[in-house]
Amino acid sequence: MISVGLVGGTGYTGVELLRLLARHPQVKLRVVTSRGQEGTAVAAMFPSLRGVVEMSFTAPDPTALAECDVVFFATPNGTAMQQVPELLAAGVKVIDLAADFRLRDVLQWEQWYAQPHACPDMLNEAVYGLPELNRESIANARLVANPGCYPTAVILGLLPLLETGCVDPRNLIADAKSGVSGAGRKASLAHAMGEIGESFKAYAMSGHRHWPEIRQTLTQVANTDVGLTFVPHLVPMIRGIEVTLYARWGSGPRPDLNVLYTSRYAHEPFVDVLPDGVAAETRFVRGSNRMQIALATPPETETVVISGVIDNLVKGAAGQAVQNLNLMFGLAETMGLTDIALSP
Amino acid sequence: MISVGLVGGTGYTGVELLRLLARHPQVKLRVVTSRGQEGTAVAAMFPSLRGVVEMSFTAPDPTALAECDVVFFATPNGTAMQQVPELLAAGVKVIDLAADFRLRDVLQWEQWYAQPHACPDMLNEAVYGLPELNRESIANARLVANPGCYPTAVILGLLPLLETGCVDPRNLIADAKSGVSGAGRKASLAHAMGEIGESFKAYAMSGHRHWPEIRQTLTQVANTDVGLTFVPHLVPMIRGIEVTLYARWGSGPRPDLNVLYTSRYAHEPFVDVLPDGVAAETRFVRGSNRMQIALATPPETETVVISGVIDNLVKGAAGQAVQNLNLMFGLAETMGLTDIALSP
Amino acid sequence: MISVGLVGGTGYTGVELLRLLARHPQVKLRVVTSRGQEGTAVAAMFPSLRGVVEMSFTAPDPTALAECDVVFFATPNGTAMQQVPELLAAGVKVIDLAADFRLRDVLQWEQWYAQPHACPDMLNEAVYGLPELNRESIANARLVANPGCYPTAVILGLLPLLETGCVDPRNLIADAKSGVSGAGRKASLAHAMGEIGESFKAYAMSGHRHWPEIRQTLTQVANTDVGLTFVPHLVPMIRGIEVTLYARWGSGPRPDLNVLYTSRYAHEPFVDVLPDGVAAETRFVRGSNRMQIALATPPETETVVISGVIDNLVKGAAGQAVQNLNLMFGLAETMGLTDIALSP
Amino acid sequence: MISVGLVGGTGYTGVELLRLLARHPQVKLRVVTSRGQEGTAVAAMFPSLRGVVEMSFTAPDPTALAECDVVFFATPNGTAMQQVPELLAAGVKVIDLAADFRLRDVLQWEQWYAQPHACPDMLNEAVYGLPELNRESIANARLVANPGCYPTAVILGLLPLLETGCVDPRNLIADAKSGVSGAGRKASLAHAMGEIGESFKAYAMSGHRHWPEIRQTLTQVANTDVGLTFVPHLVPMIRGIEVTLYARWGSGPRPDLNVLYTSRYAHEPFVDVLPDGVAAETRFVRGSNRMQIALATPPETETVVISGVIDNLVKGAAGQAVQNLNLMFGLAETMGLTDIALSP
Repeated sequence: MISVGLVGGTGYTGVELLRLLARHPQVKLRVVTSRGQEGTAVAAMFPSLRGVVEMSFTAPDPTALAECDVVFFATPNGTAMQQVPELLAAGVKVIDLAADFRLRDVLQWEQWYAQPHACPDMLNEAVYGLPELNRESIANARLVANPGCYPTAVILGLLPLLETGCVDPRNLIADAKSGVSGAGRKASLAHAMGEIGESFKAYAMSGHRHWPEIRQTLTQVANTDVGLTFVPHLVPMIRGIEVTLYARWGSGPRPDLNVLYTSRYAHEPFVDVLPDGVAAETRFVRGSNRMQIALATPPETETVVISGVIDNLVKGAAGQAVQNLNLMFGLAETMGLTDIALSP
Repeated sequence: MISVGLVGGTGYTGVELLRLLARHPQVKLRVVTSRGQEGTAVAAMFPSLRGVVEMSFTAPDPTALAECDVVFFATPNGTAMQQVPELLAAGVKVIDLAADFRLRDVLQWEQWYAQPHACPDMLNEAVYGLPELNRESIANARLVANPGCYPTAVILGLLPLLETGCVDPRNLIADAKSGVSGAGRKASLAHAMGEIGESFKAYAMSGHRHWPEIRQTLTQVANTDVGLTFVPHLVPMIRGIEVTLYARWGSGPRPDLNVLYTSRYAHEPFVDVLPDGVAAETRFVRGSNRMQIALATPPETETVVISGVIDNLVKGAAGQAVQNLNLMFGLAETMGLTDIALSP
Repeated sequence: MISVGLVGGTGYTGVELLRLLARHPQVKLRVVTSRGQEGTAVAAMFPSLRGVVEMSFTAPDPTALAECDVVFFATPNGTAMQQVPELLAAGVKVIDLAADFRLRDVLQWEQWYAQPHACPDMLNEAVYGLPELNRESIANARLVANPGCYPTAVILGLLPLLETGCVDPRNLIADAKSGVSGAGRKASLAHAMGEIGESFKAYAMSGHRHWPEIRQTLTQVANTDVGLTFVPHLVPMIRGIEVTLYARWGSGPRPDLNVLYTSRYAHEPFVDVLPDGVAAETRFVRGSNRMQIALATPPETETVVISGVIDNLVKGAAGQAVQNLNLMFGLAETMGLTDIALSP
Repeated sequence: MISVGLVGGTGYTGVELLRLLARHPQVKLRVVTSRGQEGTAVAAMFPSLRGVVEMSFTAPDPTALAECDVVFFATPNGTAMQQVPELLAAGVKVIDLAADFRLRDVLQWEQWYAQPHACPDMLNEAVYGLPELNRESIANARLVANPGCYPTAVILGLLPLLETGCVDPRNLIADAKSGVSGAGRKASLAHAMGEIGESFKAYAMSGHRHWPEIRQTLTQVANTDVGLTFVPHLVPMIRGIEVTLYARWGSGPRPDLNVLYTSRYAHEPFVDVLPDGVAAETRFVRGSNRMQIALATPPETETVVISGVIDNLVKGAAGQAVQNLNLMFGLAETMGLTDIALSP
């Protein structure tokens, strides 16, 4: 059994990790910390876990964490980087669900996250935890930067196009839509249902932190600078991300889209390319670790359109983190991740 | 008082028209028809209208309609065109909220609507009822084709860019999202809340009837062929459309976006350009005839991004129809349309 | 024109009052105060009011308020009572939308609101602003306590039964359900959509502040002590209250329910008794000042069931406040309140 | 492995059964029938099942069904009773998720379901499949009538009170609220999101088919006639039932509610009595087979209030059916039912 610690168990990615880890056959949850909720029973905060998770939140304690095989951080940005060096030194593996280790370039990181980085030398060691792209490095990693929710969907959606070089990499558009759980569990007016229920909006139109993260990976995949416009939107639902991706055919030969995607993802357990004419709907991946992808080439345009859906809390966060755990410990990649989407 | 007939009063655009017409100070509602609901009190079907609309639905009766000053059609596509010639001949003005007279090209119409057109010779007489573009022609029209909901938002969102020619007209992208009332009031599994609530999807990715409608008008505005990719999405809410529009700067000088839009719409009572940093949210136009527009130029791209919101049933349908009525009868354009958005 | 001040314009009842007052033909809005938002344009906070309310929030200023004819308080409980004596002394009428003057018994008030009352001697002067019950006193009042949202629906729903004494007053049950806007506009985890969307619960089962308010009025109407069980519930929607009321027939003759309610409310412009078999649905009163009521007597029981719906922000708050304003200033009771429900 | 047939796999209870059965370690799904969808791949209708259920719907075929160990009927009322006698005769066990075998009294059944019963002699053999009440009979049954969703919640909520006789059985009130999936998967205007989203209503106030079902069981439990008022409501969400139950203390001693419920359900794996002050919320049982129950005794009344929540498709339908399957085949009662609620 793998001994697991969770730092920051009171947010939505935290409780989702608890849901998944509690049923994972090779995991023994050892400690769940929360600075603010020390002493509170986990199940008192999340009655869905009554009878399942019997622990209480403890104050973050380096000793207890150092005794784990692996520690997940489901904390605000800027927290994990304070503790990671010590944990790694103690031989503990780390999976950070926040953004602390997602960008390679420390200047860029400090600009977008508006704080100095605590351990910039580790940015290069950290492996970007997208198994469909970095499976082998993840298996050997001590430190995994779990991707953001939008980046997971956008990158997987564009990957086959950029790997084959069949589209113009300088003119990519990602129109992304997320349910409200993507913004976290916070006491804020901006999260109040009276403000965001029954309404829809684009936000962060002039810049979102997931933009440099996506661009970094797409640039690496395309092996050239990419031009990416990324606009996120807020959907009045709780779970789910849909991204509609627009690319322009390049000047070379144009592959059959369906063949391209189907073959690229043929052996991926968590990427499902839908048949022609079937829409990608967030309801069909709710609670599952799967991405579903629909493809189209609208008439009389040079545009390729990809629509992809994930559950932002599963494939976009906690599920992908468990997938990375499985890889890092040599387990079957799908272990503990076989839940079927809850639909309706 | 203007004597008004309404053909097809049982759908969402129908009941919205009734809501607006019932409070319009210069309108006298004379007849509301429904083939299927003959004899049913309007207020029995829509209890929101109890004590307000005291009439019953009647069977469509050419004589009664011919005695009106103006007849609105809130019918399925293909219905109005059967009756319009006779009404026009009787001196009655017509505002069609369906698609029968929106396209100029009869072949295109017949292709997209999969039926022969009953009066193709009238396609040229019909005026496309977008007041911000065709105010004068509407004032003189006998027959107004009320625009589709998506087209209203997309066209108004792109108008200043195309009129000034500052963007590349061959590479326009409209990522559009609509609440479920946009699909009408129908007994269909596709409309069931269990199928579309708490979920989000792109649909009609390979072609939607509003695409040729938008392209026709944009082509006319740009005075050149436009290349438009249009992808509609379904939002789990009832009212509201948001469109996120992407264009590439052209090779000429780049105007200040805010100045461009603000000056173009300075005298438009129903188009509101938001200040920098304020998001366009559907909740702030719910129930009102207003479009709100937010602008952005994301960093390190050549892309202009426009986010616009309307209430699909008001500015996208019934409200715009009343706006056209006002123009056609020489009334103040805002008469009966001063409702403030119902928010929250 | 009536010169109106509004203290506390940043909550949902505040913005709803602004929506209604901005279109009220006899009202001139003079001042809108907010301690926290001094200097902010009202329309910057509520873009729905752009071009409609051109004022900015000002700091609460007794002098400016004293120059109004009437001041509305849309403030948290405990605020109005600090300023009301001074305003009344200055000849200003006051309508308090909070709870400061709703209870007659100061001890009870202090127990439920957990603070000392600032002007207990005014509790007797204040008129409970339910026009259907206290129309004449309201017309002559200087100080009106606008009823709570739940109390409005519960009291109007039970009124005919208690006035005629046909049910057992010791065994009344009010099962009440509210949309989330009823809890106000607050930065709180309890209001976050991730916590309350797509979910339903009973809350405050062991006691809610509206219980003594309802009981006080029902006791007065029944002219005897009433026994009332009141359980509120939270509905994942924004606007609307539905109350299902259960009473047991008394030992006397049993009136025809429909006749009883129809005749009691025959001349009430804002209470609409639905015909047999028509359900009361919150959507049909959304945005309107109307209550709709459905009646039933289930088979093989001694129970009378009443289902009533209001918009909690209109008839349950701001609309009723305007109705009271109209009465206090001798205007037509429906002035500014003729909006038809926004449905769908 | 148990060989399982499913008749009627295209509704919400059908797809939910498929979700549960596909992961059940002792089940081999042999046949899924649908008269209307013969030949359609199950996963084409429900993309959530892609890669999980590889079968296609077949036309109902008595031979194939007769080779199963057990057949589930997730069909409209009136279908199962046509086929059950033949299946039982062939030695196949049957679990009917519809209402065909829920009532003992054939006259009552025929009155409420408005059709003659096809095999009235089997009404007495059928066991009402509520394990918490009838565990042993279920284990020995050939034919199980799976309870309705509302009845499950209401009966389990009232059971301890009626078993101990501490409340007045003649005056029970069940105010029940259900998400929209409870009404099934149907092409009907009444299910359209435009009609039921963002709205709340009581329905069937004068009589609902679950009323006689609840009353029959409560009468049996109380061993005396019960008087029950049952009013269902529709909640604008997809999954979840909450019932608020009101009873009056009887004249005998009053037990401590918490002790009573906790001890009654101490060994029930799927009934969870919440601690004082914790609300029962549907989100905390979404997707799980668990009922959660909160208790209260409001001040100054004689009323006991119980609030209970279930997922209508799991404990209220498919999950309970699997629980019954487990009992009927001597498996661990919780097998295949260990999913933790999906929250948020």
